[in-house]
Parts: sequence; structure tokens; C-alpha cells
Amino acid sequence: MISEQYKNMLSGKSVIRELFAYATKRGQEIGYENVFDYSLGNPSVPTPPEFTNTMIKMLTEMDPVALHGYSPTQGIGSVLEKIAASLNRKYNLGYTAKHIFPTTGAAGAVAHAVRAVSVPGDEIITFAPYFPEYGPYINLTGAVLKVVPANTEDFQINFEEFEKIINEKTAAVLINTPNNPSGVVYSTATIKQLASVLNRKAQEYNHDIYLISDEPYREIVFAGVDAPYVSKFYDNTIVCYSFSKSLSLPGERIGYVAVNPACKDGELIIAMCGQISRGIGHNCPPSIIQLAMAEVVDMTADLSVYEKNANILYKELSNLGFTCVKPGGTFYIFPKALEEDAAAFSKKALKYDLILVPSDSFGCPGYFRMAYCIETQKVERSLSALRKFVETEYR
Amino acid sequence: MISEQYKNMLSGKSVIRELFAYATKRGQEIGYENVFDYSLGNPSVPTPPEFTNTMIKMLTEMDPVALHGYSPTQGIGSVLEKIAASLNRKYNLGYTAKHIFPTTGAAGAVAHAVRAVSVPGDEIITFAPYFPEYGPYINLTGAVLKVVPANTEDFQINFEEFEKIINEKTAAVLINTPNNPSGVVYSTATIKQLASVLNRKAQEYNHDIYLISDEPYREIVFAGVDAPYVSKFYDNTIVCYSFSKSLSLPGERIGYVAVNPACKDGELIIAMCGQISRGIGHNCPPSIIQLAMAEVVDMTADLSVYEKNANILYKELSNLGFTCVKPGGTFYIFPKALEEDAAAFSKKALKYDLILVPSDSFGCPGYFRMAYCIETQKVERSLSALRKFVETEYR
Repeated sequence: MISEQYKNMLSGKSVIRELFAYATKRGQEIGYENVFDYSLGNPSVPTPPEFTNTMIKMLTEMDPVALHGYSPTQGIGSVLEKIAASLNRKYNLGYTAKHIFPTTGAAGAVAHAVRAVSVPGDEIITFAPYFPEYGPYINLTGAVLKVVPANTEDFQINFEEFEKIINEKTAAVLINTPNNPSGVVYSTATIKQLASVLNRKAQEYNHDIYLISDEPYREIVFAGVDAPYVSKFYDNTIVCYSFSKSLSLPGERIGYVAVNPACKDGELIIAMCGQISRGIGHNCPPSIIQLAMAEVVDMTADLSVYEKNANILYKELSNLGFTCVKPGGTFYIFPKALEEDAAAFSKKALKYDLILVPSDSFGCPGYFRMAYCIETQKVERSLSALRKFVETEYR
Repeated sequence: MISEQYKNMLSGKSVIRELFAYATKRGQEIGYENVFDYSLGNPSVPTPPEFTNTMIKMLTEMDPVALHGYSPTQGIGSVLEKIAASLNRKYNLGYTAKHIFPTTGAAGAVAHAVRAVSVPGDEIITFAPYFPEYGPYINLTGAVLKVVPANTEDFQINFEEFEKIINEKTAAVLINTPNNPSGVVYSTATIKQLASVLNRKAQEYNHDIYLISDEPYREIVFAGVDAPYVSKFYDNTIVCYSFSKSLSLPGERIGYVAVNPACKDGELIIAMCGQISRGIGHNCPPSIIQLAMAEVVDMTADLSVYEKNANILYKELSNLGFTCVKPGGTFYIFPKALEEDAAAFSKKALKYDLILVPSDSFGCPGYFRMAYCIETQKVERSLSALRKFVETEYR
């Protein structure tokens, strides 16, 4: 029988993807350079040449049978070791290959982590505003996503509401810092308080509560911002990482799960990830992508453009009277819309060829997200459209 | 809570992978060239140089931001069109991009197809001997795998037993031809009879029954063998294809789902595949692999070595008195073991550095599989070990 579950998902397709499709179509009419497309988090800076050169070198010099052969179920050993060593250079927590599992980006990592530490009926808590794809990632495992309302003051965690929602069925808490869509980085104080609540509740409920830390924007943190490494503050932390943003490789689908070496059942969770991959017919990311990534694991693309764009937009949005928390990282900014209905606001913006994503699907109505991973020159050109939009529609 | 389901899978790990691990370890002791490793279906011939050259050209000439950007949810349009055109050149069934979804090999394709056409509790029927990974692929969707006992006469379908097992809960039938592990290709007569049963039963039960045709070995068919294209004989056919064997790219995880253009709800099934990918956090195979594959979609590696090896082994096994159906394709042969307990037989073979996979996990006890995707010269060298094994242990 055709699965109604997946069939029904078709009518709930991603608003972001649909706006992006609109922007592409509009670009064909007026030239894409004239569409101020802030819809999609697709990095705008090239991958480091070292990645490209490594790929070419492997293709040129390696035996193709070895290069393109099956990856072991748990990933290519040398790749896991290089990821562990890189994490140890940065955070010194004693990672080994047994703590790492390679995945198709952070999305794949979250999907694996949730399957490993929950059973159907368990609850996974996240905090608004949150990445809307968490809905399908979590709910299709049989676990249930619970959302803590946003703290719109500063987009740190709303602990009062969190304590109302956490309960015995909570298997894991899923955080995303630096955050998509708010651009905010959780402070050390926030992470410490979160760890403290989780430790207290785990004891109260007499079972482990895992902290799944979705960190695709870990390397995109702006000057002077406090950006703690979550695993240092809570033993049962499972990091979900992606090279999509740091190496500008979103289409190549490469990332990893890294369990904190102090994590309860951590090595078991990693071994289970291999079995979860079997179940979805996946069997590790492509060998060549694993191998090439491992050679440039410590590098990043030139990420400085994102901070530059953030500053330009934050200044202009503030000048125009928007309520807006200053981003601490990522390439997103999340201002309050100028009317209650963010969808209506975003629709009006289309008249000015401004593609702004309304916040409803992020679990925080009344806001909009701008993904400013575009050229600075285009950000600057968009400012007059932004001014015209605000002045015409809301003055 | 840690998922017991995945935890328990760890104790049921693949026998094939474990034998391969043994062979690798033994190779470190005596030199891998002296281990007659017939365990793993890892192609032994290089990918065509055109694939390598295409990869290098794209890496050298394309804008890296475009090259490594996100694939659309349904796959890269130009890639889908090239796959459809290639299928039409070969089979002329009128495929378009809307009938194709790119996946991580045939494994990913089967995992998607089953999720699309079944709901938990539905039954999926396959025929022994069968690829043991079908167990996790099917059972983790919530559907239930039912296995029709083998027709050991010629390893075509045992229709008498099939008719006993098919019932109202049957959502799909999963076949694999050319077959792993038997090496047999289902004949036109077999496919016609299968289609006839399915049409009759679909009418009787008043619901569609899909035929999921797992075809990673489609291009490896030996001289003079009748190898029908399954979709031509049954409208509701969903092809699961992989370039792992045809292009010798098993580690790069690239394949597709192709619904027969005449398939009921076919385009819907393809659209649903995009949603299924979302749910597993996968989001299409890597962009660069999709793009490079599409450029060489009609090519294959030099597959002639497999037929050569098949002939050498079939002849020697027959001489040694093994009961053995002659392979019509693939790189597997599936003789009857010389004692009832195939695991005991395979264990004894290890003494002669022969790595033979016992057939229990293929749902057909008492046989063993040899994956002869190794150098012909090594196959020839293995013959004396094979003779010595048989003569010492069973004469």
C-alpha cells in the first residue's frame, strides 16, 4: 500500500525550498542578480583549493579500485582517526576513531543520533526557533519532537518553559548553536545551566538524557563572541557536525557523529550508527569524499564574508526600526516582522524582489529569516530595496 | 533510551563482512595474495578512465560553489534526464526525469522503494537464495520480509511455494536478477509467470502489488544468456539500480530508483522518495558523484573478467563433483556444500586459505557462495587449494 505518511509530507514541503524555487524562477525573468534571494543557506564562498587539489591528486594517483572501493561499515579507519585528532587539537577531550561515525552531513548525523538513543514514543526536546527539518528527522524515527517556545529577548534558552516540558519520556535534547535561524550562539552560562538541568532531571528520572548538539555552524562565529564547545560541559553529548558550511561542500553531504569520550554507552552508540545506516540502505558517505575531507579536516573556506554581511544587515535593519538580536555567528539574521503575520510580510517583500523566509516553520511566529550567504555587493544593493519595502508598506 | 533494536543488530552482524575481516587479517600474516578471498562482492576492475577524467575536468573547470552546491530534493535535473535517456536507449519504455530518483546505490534504492509502497505490517516477499541485507532493509521499515524457499533445481522461482506465501498483506515482491548469491538470471518464462501471478493476485486482493526489481548486476550477463528487462513484463515495476558493479564504484554509493512509466502512482512514488530521504537526513547522493556518473551513464568497466572467472570455477567445481548451477551473470557462484552444515564446510575451508561464504544467511542452507570478482590469475592459483581441500576433507 502506498505510504500515506510520506505522501502527506508532499503537501507540507519546505517553505524555504519553495521560496528558493520562486527566486530561481524570478531570476530567469529579471536576472538572478536582481533578485535579493535570502532564502537558502547555500554557502557562497568556494571550498579551499586544497580540497579540490586533494580530490584531483587522488583521482590521478590512486588505484581506482582502492579509491572507489567499499568503505567499512563504520567508516574508513584513517578518516575517523583524522577527525578524532582534529577534534583533540581543538578541544582536547580524548576522541578516538571509536567515537566517530561519518554521515551525510549534520542532517544524517542527527537522524542517526536520534535513532540510536530513542525508541518510538520517546520525546526529543528542541528549542524555538529551530531548523524546520527537525520535524521530519525526529518524527519519522517514531520519537516525538517537543518544542520549547523561544526566548525572544536574546534567543538563548527559555529555561522556565523547558522545565515545564521535560519529563520522564525525554530521551534527548537537541540544540543547534550557533543557531539556525536566529544567528545566536548559546553562551557558556546557557550551556552550563542546560547541563545542570539535564543532570538533575536524569537523576530524578533515573535514566540518561542525551544532549544532541547539532553544530554545522561551529566554525562560523564572529569576533568577540563566547562560543563554548558543548561537549566540555555535559558528558552525554553527541555532536552532529557537517562540513557543508565550513568547507563550502553542502552538496557533497559529508559530516559526522562524534560522541563525547565520556558519554555513557558512547562507543556502543557509534557501533549502532553503522547498523542504523544498514537499515536505511546507506552504508557510509562516498569513499572519495571521506578521504578528501580527511586531508583538509582542519581547514575552512574563507568565512569572513559572513561576518561582514551580518554587520551590514544588522546596522541597516536597526536603522529601519526592526527589532533584531545581533547574530553571533552563522549566516542568518532573524528580525521581527513589521506585522504580526510573517507570511503576509514576506509576501509583500516579494514585490521588491526581496526573498525573506517567514518564521512560522521555525516555531517562532512573527519573525523572518535572512540567509546572507550571498555576495557582499549584493547585500549592499539589497538595502535600497529593503528601505523602499519598509517605507512603502509600513510608513 | 538506547535503542535495543539497533543494539541487537550488532550481535547479528554480516557473516560476509566478518569473513572479509578474517581474510584481511590472514592476509597480513601470509600476504593477501595467498588468501583466496571469495568473500566480498567488491569489483576488481577499475572504473572507466572516462569517469576519472570527468571528475578531474569538473574539479578543474567548474565554479566550486556551483559544483558542490546542494542538489535539489529530487536530484539534479540534468542527471535525471540523462539516466532516463539512457534507459530509453536500452529499453525504450518512455522514461522521463519524473520517473527517476538518485540514491546511494541499489541498497538505498530498495530502502526507499519499500518505504514508498508499504506501511508497517505489510509483507514484502522475496525468493531464496537472497541477499541477506534485505533483512534489515525491509524489517526496519516496519514491513515484514517473507522468504519463498529456493528452487534448488535451477534457482529460478519456486512458484508452488510462492503461491502458498502470497496473501492480502503482500504489498510488494522483491526480486534480484541476475541474482546474488546464485549467479542465475531469471528467464523470460520466469518473469512472465511471475507477472501473471502478480496480476491475478492484485485483482483477487483488489490492491496493487509492486514488483521491486533489484538490478545491480544488470550489466553483468554472460554470453548467450536470456536476460529480460523486468519492467517490460509488469507495469508496476520499480527498478533499483546501482553503478557499484557496472562502473566499479561501490564505495561512491550511487544508483537510482526508476519507476516504470506505466507504473500506477509512479510519479507519486518518485516524489515520495524525496520525502523519504528527508526523513533519514540524507538528501540525495553527493552532487559531484551525480554529475560525473551522468556523463558516463552508458559506459561500463571492462566486465569480461567475471565471465572468464565464472567459466574457470564452474568447470573445476564440476570436475570436483560439486552440484552447481552454471552462473548466467554476476560475479557469484553458489555450489552445494559437501556436507549438510555449510558453516562447518566453510570453516574447514579456512585451513586451506579459502574464504567461502556459507549459505545460511542467504535463506538456503547447505550451499556456499564464492564472489569471484578477483584477478583471474588468483582464481587459477586457488584451484589447487580447492582440490586439496576437497580431497583431504571429503575423500
